[in-house]
Parts: sequence; structure tokens; C-alpha cells
Amino acid sequence: MTTIAIVTFDGFNEIDSFVALSILNRVARPAWRAVLVAPSREITSMNGVRISAHAELEAAAEADAVLVGSGTKTRDVVADARTMGRLRLDPARQVIGSQCSGALVLAKLGLLAGTPVCTDRRTKATLESEGVSVLEQPLFARGNVATAGGCLASVYLAAWTIAKLAGEDAARAALAYVVPVGEERAAAEHALDVAAGATRAPRASKGYRG
Amino acid sequence: MTTIAIVTFDGFNEIDSFVALSILNRVARPAWRAVLVAPSREITSMNGVRISAHAELEAAAEADAVLVGSGTKTRDVVADARTMGRLRLDPARQVIGSQCSGALVLAKLGLLAGTPVCTDRRTKATLESEGVSVLEQPLFARGNVATAGGCLASVYLAAWTIAKLAGEDAARAALAYVVPVGEERAAAEHALDVAAGATRAPRASKGYRG
Repeated sequence: MTTIAIVTFDGFNEIDSFVALSILNRVARPAWRAVLVAPSREITSMNGVRISAHAELEAAAEADAVLVGSGTKTRDVVADARTMGRLRLDPARQVIGSQCSGALVLAKLGLLAGTPVCTDRRTKATLESEGVSVLEQPLFARGNVATAGGCLASVYLAAWTIAKLAGEDAARAALAYVVPVGEERAAAEHALDVAAGATRAPRASKGYRG
Repeated sequence: MTTIAIVTFDGFNEIDSFVALSILNRVARPAWRAVLVAPSREITSMNGVRISAHAELEAAAEADAVLVGSGTKTRDVVADARTMGRLRLDPARQVIGSQCSGALVLAKLGLLAGTPVCTDRRTKATLESEGVSVLEQPLFARGNVATAGGCLASVYLAAWTIAKLAGEDAARAALAYVVPVGEERAAAEHALDVAAGATRAPRASKGYRG
């Protein structure tokens, strides 16, 4: 059984959590499942959509991979010792990633010590004020820990996670389902390139060409 | 007040509905709101996430724009006269779009007569068997009605919708929040190009360049 837990808090950004959930669940392997985990069974997104999580935070400790989503209340989460204490992650045996302000959670857990980080522009200011080096690129990885910045970098974080757990061909196949029609090859290969190049920093991002 | 209704059914694809919802709600205008509407207050996504919709299907009739999402049960929806009867759309006064299998709903409502369509590969076979011409591109628009194919073409459909309702600058600003860090300009301009070029078919898609 391979389980990926997408950690999602109240006030969450829908793109960050659901793009990862959807792409990760496209992997065509038996006993492979991506789920949303949250501090409580019901949480509400930043745009007012109430959802039921699949499981509570403690389930992340048992997952093969854990991706921490972003949202409007991540600063409150990080300041809440009780919630943070429920989140037990181990980069020695788990693949771990964060999306945008999710980097604050990984930093608080001590998982980003001495490594540059990708995040959104707002979180960048917070992390830099704490002495963290923030990169101008969508994804950076060191060992089993990756950080992503910009909601739609969730596509790259999902590709990196699948590649780590199941190989690049599995990531390519999963991406093939979700990329825009007529752009399949270019979009999937670009995402795989970003994922494969995520251990290099700074990366000279060329991005899309229309 | 500008309202965009994202029509979402049981078994829905999370990327299709939530990427549009999130981008559309980035438009910084007073009294502007994108909401999820569904046949019942609670529905469950294709990956087992139960959500509460903001409103029921009838609300789409009052919206300025209506985007129909995709999912695993769209064929059942289209076959259900009672559900379809609750969905009253008017392309004379509403901006209307579909994502992937959502095209089946627009076709059933008679909104795609005589126009080529964008959709996903599975729906393509269904529509072609009914004599509809399906394009190898992510987005096509004629007048107030657009169709998109491939989950992540939801970015383009959202850009097109904002451009129709509020202009290209508003679309550019909304996209700036969600594109990957380090690729902001290229990714946003590509999406705007696809949206602006959506009235041309067939479009020579160049897609992304990594």
C-alpha cells in the first residue's frame, strides 16, 4: 500500500490541495491512494467550500509521502503547538513536500534547516525575515524534502512526488491525463523537467512559451 | 454584482471545478464572486472528497457566467431529464463554458449546435459518434460559449471567462496569483494567448516549452 497524505488546513487554497490530490490519484498502481488529512473532519476552503477530509492529521505519520498545502491560516497553524504536535513527519522514510505557505509548517518542524526554499511571494517575506533563503523558481528539492511556490507549481510538486515514489514513467502517465489537450507532450515534459531539475538551485527557469 | 456559477456534479473532477473557482475568485473587484452550484447541497468528488456546494443548480440561471465541470457521472446527469431541467442557461446574456465532459451538458442543452468542441479524449469519442466535430486544442469559443479539454485547460477557461466579463488586464492580474514562481510572465501570457485565440480553430497549439 502506498499512501500520500495531503495536509490541508482551514482556509486552504483549493488549487494547492486538489491539483495534487487529483494528479496523485491518477497513478495506475494497485493499493495506491492520495488522501486529504486535516486537523478536523470538516474544514472550509479560502473560498468558502466546506469539505470532509479523508482522515485526521495523525494519519500523515503513516503515509509514504506527505504534502503540506497552503492557505490563509497557515500562520495560525504554525503558532498552535497542539496542532503542530499532531503532525509527525520523518524525512528518512517519507517523501515530504510543501506548497506555498506550507513551507512555514515544514520550517517549524525543522525540516528546512540550511536549505533554500520555494514558496509564494507573501510567505517569502516571512521566511526571509527568519533568515531562510527563498528561490525565484517553482520547485526545489533536497533529498526527500521539496518545496514549491505558486499555486500551479502543485503540478510540479505532484510530478516530483510520483517520480520519487514510483519513477518518472509513472509521473509521465499521470500527467498525461490532466494536461491541456493539444499541449500534452510539451506540458508533461516541462513538468517532468522541473521535477527532475528540482535539486539544482538556482534554476534558470524558462517557463512556458505560448 | 458579478456571479460565476461553477456547475459541479457528484463524481466531479477536482481540478476542473476548483482551479476555475480559485482563479475566478482572485479577481479583485467588489461584488465579484465565483461559487460552486450542484444538484444537491452535498456532493462527493471522484476521489472521495465530500463537499458542500454554495448553492443549488437553479442558481446558475441568475449567474453572469456559468462553467460546467467534468466528472465520472456526467453521462448519468445528461440522461436525467429532471436534473437537466433545473439548469436554465442563456447564451444571449450569460458567458458559458464547459470543461471536458461538461461539453455533454452544453450539447444536451443545445448550446453547441454547429460548433466544433474541445473536450477530453473519452468524451471526444462520445461526441464524435453524435456527429460533433472535436478539436485537438485546449479551448475553443464562439460568441459567449467556450469549451475546454484536459483538466488543466481549466486555467485557460478561467482566463477566457475573466477576459469576457472584466477584460484581459483583470485576467492577467488574476493569473499572476496562481502561476508557478519564476514562470509568472510566460505562464500568464500563454494562458491569455490561448484565451484570446480561442475563437480560431483549428489552432496551431505550441504549448509549453520547458
